[in-house]
Amino acid sequence: MANKLKISMILLQSLDGFIAKNQQDKLDWGSKTDKQNFKEKTIEIGTMICGTNTYVHMPDFAFKNRKTYVLTSRPDELIQRENVTLFTGSPSQLVQKILDDGITNVALVGGGHIYNSFLAENLVDEIFITIAPVAFGKGIHGFGENVLANKFKLISMSKMGEDEIYLHYEVIE
Amino acid sequence: MANKLKISMILLQSLDGFIAKNQQDKLDWGSKTDKQNFKEKTIEIGTMICGTNTYVHMPDFAFKNRKTYVLTSRPDELIQRENVTLFTGSPSQLVQKILDDGITNVALVGGGHIYNSFLAENLVDEIFITIAPVAFGKGIHGFGENVLANKFKLISMSKMGEDEIYLHYEVIE
Repeated sequence: MANKLKISMILLQSLDGFIAKNQQDKLDWGSKTDKQNFKEKTIEIGTMICGTNTYVHMPDFAFKNRKTYVLTSRPDELIQRENVTLFTGSPSQLVQKILDDGITNVALVGGGHIYNSFLAENLVDEIFITIAPVAFGKGIHGFGENVLANKFKLISMSKMGEDEIYLHYEVIE
Repeated sequence: MANKLKISMILLQSLDGFIAKNQQDKLDWGSKTDKQNFKEKTIEIGTMICGTNTYVHMPDFAFKNRKTYVLTSRPDELIQRENVTLFTGSPSQLVQKILDDGITNVALVGGGHIYNSFLAENLVDEIFITIAPVAFGKGIHGFGENVLANKFKLISMSKMGEDEIYLHYEVIE
């Protein structure tokens, strides 16, 4: 019986370390290639975890072919979509719930607060990061202030569409 | 006669976008390979621009074989080293001074305030960035809040020592 949930953090980041300019950012500075890769990767993993703001901004088709857990303190304000579980609790409690549902692999897809809280509890196993060739100067950080998982091993690197790079790290500390 | 100074920004950054944990950071999270590359690259370019804090923290040998301009509002507080020009003024005024000295290529080596002020005036032509496999959560940003140069073309990417990656970008906007 699996008693460990493998969590793969997936994020798109500007060269200066931001995942979005603000809460309304449509992420149109990411390439189509990256969006396609995101789709394929999350379908391959099979299950996603996201937060309230990411859930609200994702189109309905983003939940096709993937199960999604939304970690939210405001489930009553959210629309219930197919394949989606709205969950209120801590990251650790959500991990237990997902394991109880018989799932062993999950993609952590944001936003900033969700990445932060999982990194702060050292729950992330690997990171897939796309770095876009842009700088914003300010915005929302992907990693957050209280990262406990803070040292990584580079597994692979490759070029992606429109001058992006795609990096795969294992979390080692 | 050259009337354009080519400015190459060189920086070491954490995966979450910081060039230092704080003003006292000794950058010991960067690899020896990166330090060696920094030395070779700046000697190849021949001239460096840095700010007050970077100047104070650099050892004497860092100024061997390279001419350095220190952009500082406090020249009286700094030690005058060989090959070093202490300059007070704006980034544009320093660029003119360097051109007047017959120099056409310069490496911009930090810290954050210096990177920021040159990017904010769109004076940077290319960026060599080493991304280290660490996250700090908070610290000093390399690009700064008022980046005017904010879109880049990826020229090359390679692996460096100890899980670092080394990226070369041309500033296109």
